Amino acid sequence: MPVGTQGTVKAVPQDTLESLGAQIILGNTYHLYLRPGHDAIRRMGGLHKFISWPHALLTDSGGFQVFSLNELRKVTDDGVRFRSHLDGSSHFFTPEHSIDVQIALGADICMAFDECTEYPASRSRAEESLRLTMAWARRSLDHFRAHRHLVPWSDPKACCMQCQCFGIVQGGMYRDLRRQCAERLVEMDFDGYAIGGLSVGEPRELTLEMIAETLPLLPKDKPRYVMGVGYPDEIEQYARLGVDMMDCVLPTRAARHGLLFTSEGRLNIKNKQYAEDQSPPDPACGCMVCRRYSRAYLRHLMQSSEALSGTLNTIHNLAFYLGIMRRVRDSLEAAPRSAAEALKAES
Amino acid sequence: MPVGTQGTVKAVPQDTLESLGAQIILGNTYHLYLRPGHDAIRRMGGLHKFISWPHALLTDSGGFQVFSLNELRKVTDDGVRFRSHLDGSSHFFTPEHSIDVQIALGADICMAFDECTEYPASRSRAEESLRLTMAWARRSLDHFRAHRHLVPWSDPKACCMQCQCFGIVQGGMYRDLRRQCAERLVEMDFDGYAIGGLSVGEPRELTLEMIAETLPLLPKDKPRYVMGVGYPDEIEQYARLGVDMMDCVLPTRAARHGLLFTSEGRLNIKNKQYAEDQSPPDPACGCMVCRRYSRAYLRHLMQSSEALSGTLNTIHNLAFYLGIMRRVRDSLEAAPRSAAEALKAES
Repeated sequence: MPVGTQGTVKAVPQDTLESLGAQIILGNTYHLYLRPGHDAIRRMGGLHKFISWPHALLTDSGGFQVFSLNELRKVTDDGVRFRSHLDGSSHFFTPEHSIDVQIALGADICMAFDECTEYPASRSRAEESLRLTMAWARRSLDHFRAHRHLVPWSDPKACCMQCQCFGIVQGGMYRDLRRQCAERLVEMDFDGYAIGGLSVGEPRELTLEMIAETLPLLPKDKPRYVMGVGYPDEIEQYARLGVDMMDCVLPTRAARHGLLFTSEGRLNIKNKQYAEDQSPPDPACGCMVCRRYSRAYLRHLMQSSEALSGTLNTIHNLAFYLGIMRRVRDSLEAAPRSAAEALKAES
Repeated sequence: MPVGTQGTVKAVPQDTLESLGAQIILGNTYHLYLRPGHDAIRRMGGLHKFISWPHALLTDSGGFQVFSLNELRKVTDDGVRFRSHLDGSSHFFTPEHSIDVQIALGADICMAFDECTEYPASRSRAEESLRLTMAWARRSLDHFRAHRHLVPWSDPKACCMQCQCFGIVQGGMYRDLRRQCAERLVEMDFDGYAIGGLSVGEPRELTLEMIAETLPLLPKDKPRYVMGVGYPDEIEQYARLGVDMMDCVLPTRAARHGLLFTSEGRLNIKNKQYAEDQSPPDPACGCMVCRRYSRAYLRHLMQSSEALSGTLNTIHNLAFYLGIMRRVRDSLEAAPRSAAEALKAES
C-alpha cells in the first residue's frame, strides 16, 4: 500500500496511481487531523472525495506519529497528550478520539489506537506497553462499533461497502507476549489484524521470527497486515508467508532521495557513473518511467533539484513494489501453499 | 511554448505535456550548457533524446540568462565573460559558441546570440546595445549556416527536418531603432524572427507599441515570435495581432506559487476562502486537474508544501494557456483577418 501521508502519495497524481494498479493507499490520521483537520474533511464528504481517490483507503490510528514525532508526549491509561509539530498546540488523543477522527475521514479501514513498543524494550516495559495496547484495542473497537455509521460517505458504492476496524498485535520482541496479544485480539473479533511494532530497529531475523510466530494465530479468512515494512525482498518473503497487506514509506521516500529499486538491485541514481547512461532505470521493468526515460536523464533531474525527479523516481519504485506483489499473487493463485508450508521452506 | 529550463517543464512529465497538446517546448542554453553540459547531451544524441521529447524544441541563445543571472559579466564586441551561478567557474560566450552549444543540443530552432537591452535605457545606450546585437546576429547566422549539419539527430524525422535559426529584434523602446533592426535582420534572411527585449519592466502600452511597430516589418510567411510574454490576455492580444510564437515562465512559475489563471480571472489558491471550496479551480476548464480535483484539495497541497501542488497547478495553468492559443487559432482559421486590421481594431 503506497503511503499518502497528507492525502497525497508524495509527488504522484492520483490517475498515475490508478494506472500503476494501486488498489489502496494510506492516509495518516495524525497529519490529516492537524491539517486540514478531520472536521473539514468530513464536511467535504470524507477523504476519498477530498483527495479524489474512489478506491480503498486505510488510515493509521495516529499513534505512531504521536509517539515518533513528539518528544514531549505524555502517556496515561486514558490516552496521549502531545504537541503539534506544526504550531506547538496541545492535543489529546484517546482510542475513542482516534476512531472518531478516522470515521470523520471516512477510511475504509480504521486502525485501533495502540502504543508502538520501542526497540529494544525490557520485558517489563513490553508487558506494560502491551497492557495499554490491549485496553486501547478494546476501547477502540467498542467505540468503532457504536459510531461506524457516522462515516461521511455519500455514496458507499464508491469504495468499500462498510468501514472496518483492524486490531494491532504488539508485544515487543517477546514471542509469548505476541501470542497473548494475538489471541486476545482475535477473541475481540476485529475485521482484520495487523502486526505492529516491527521494523523499529531490530535485526531482520527477529522481524521474521515475530511475524512467523504471530501469523498462524490470526484468522486466515481475514486480512493480515504487517505494518511499516519493508525492502523488496522482505515484502515478497512476508507475502509468501501469508501476509496480505503491507505499507511502507520506503519506496516513496527512497525515490525522493534517488534510491531506485530494480531487478538488478538498488541503484543510486545520483552516482556519477549514470551521467551518460542511456539505459532505462531497470531494463527488466515495463513501467512508464523505464519505457521512456534514461538513467542519465533521471540523474540530471536529481542533480538539478528538479521536481520531476521525485515524481519519476517514485513512479518507478511504486511500479516495482506493486509488481512484486502482483507476481506473488499470481504465483499463489497458480500454486497455493499454506503459510505453514511456506514457513517450513523458510526455515 | 512551455519553458523547460533545465530539460524539464518544472514538475510536469513529458507524457502529460503531450496530452495537454504542447507542440514545442523551450530549453535554456545557459542552464544546459552548465549542467549536464552540451557535450554530454550531444554524445547522448541531443536534447530530444536525452529528455525524451520527440517534438519540437527551441533553445534560447543563453544571452538572457548570462545577462540576468550574472552581476560580474564582462561584455566586449567579441562576446560575454561570465561566472557560473552553480560553482563560480568562468565562461566565455560568443555568438559562435552559443550557436555551437545550441547545435550540440540539437534544437529545432536556435536563437541568434543577442544583448537584451535593459529598461529604461538611454537612446545612446540602446543604440550601442543594438549595434552589438546586429553584429552578433550576423556572426550567429554565418556560424549557424556553416555548422548546422553537425546537429546530433540520429533520426531527423523525429522532429523538424532541418534545424533553423531565428534573429532577434532589439532596439529598446525606440521605434526607429526597432525598425532599423528588423529591416537589417530581414535582409540577412533568418528562418524566423523574434522580438526581444520586451516585458523587461516597461508599461504594457509600450510593449504593445513596440510589437505593433515591428511586426509588420517581419515576413508573414515566416514564424514571428515575441519572447518572454506574458499574461493570458496579453498572449491572446499579441496572437491576434499576428504573433505566432510566445514563451513565458509565468504560467509555470506562478503555478508553483499558487497563482492559477482561470476563465474567472486570477485565483490565489493559498487563500483561506478556498479551504473548503469543493468546486474545480476553473469551472469552465476541462483539463485533467479541473475534472478531478477541488480548490480545497489544491489549497491543502500548497499549505502542506506537497510536491503534487506544483504539478497539478502547473498542469492547469499550461492547459489554460494552451487553450487560449487553440481558441485564437480556431477563430483565425474561421475568420482570418490581417494584422493591419487587427491593429486598427486595437487602436
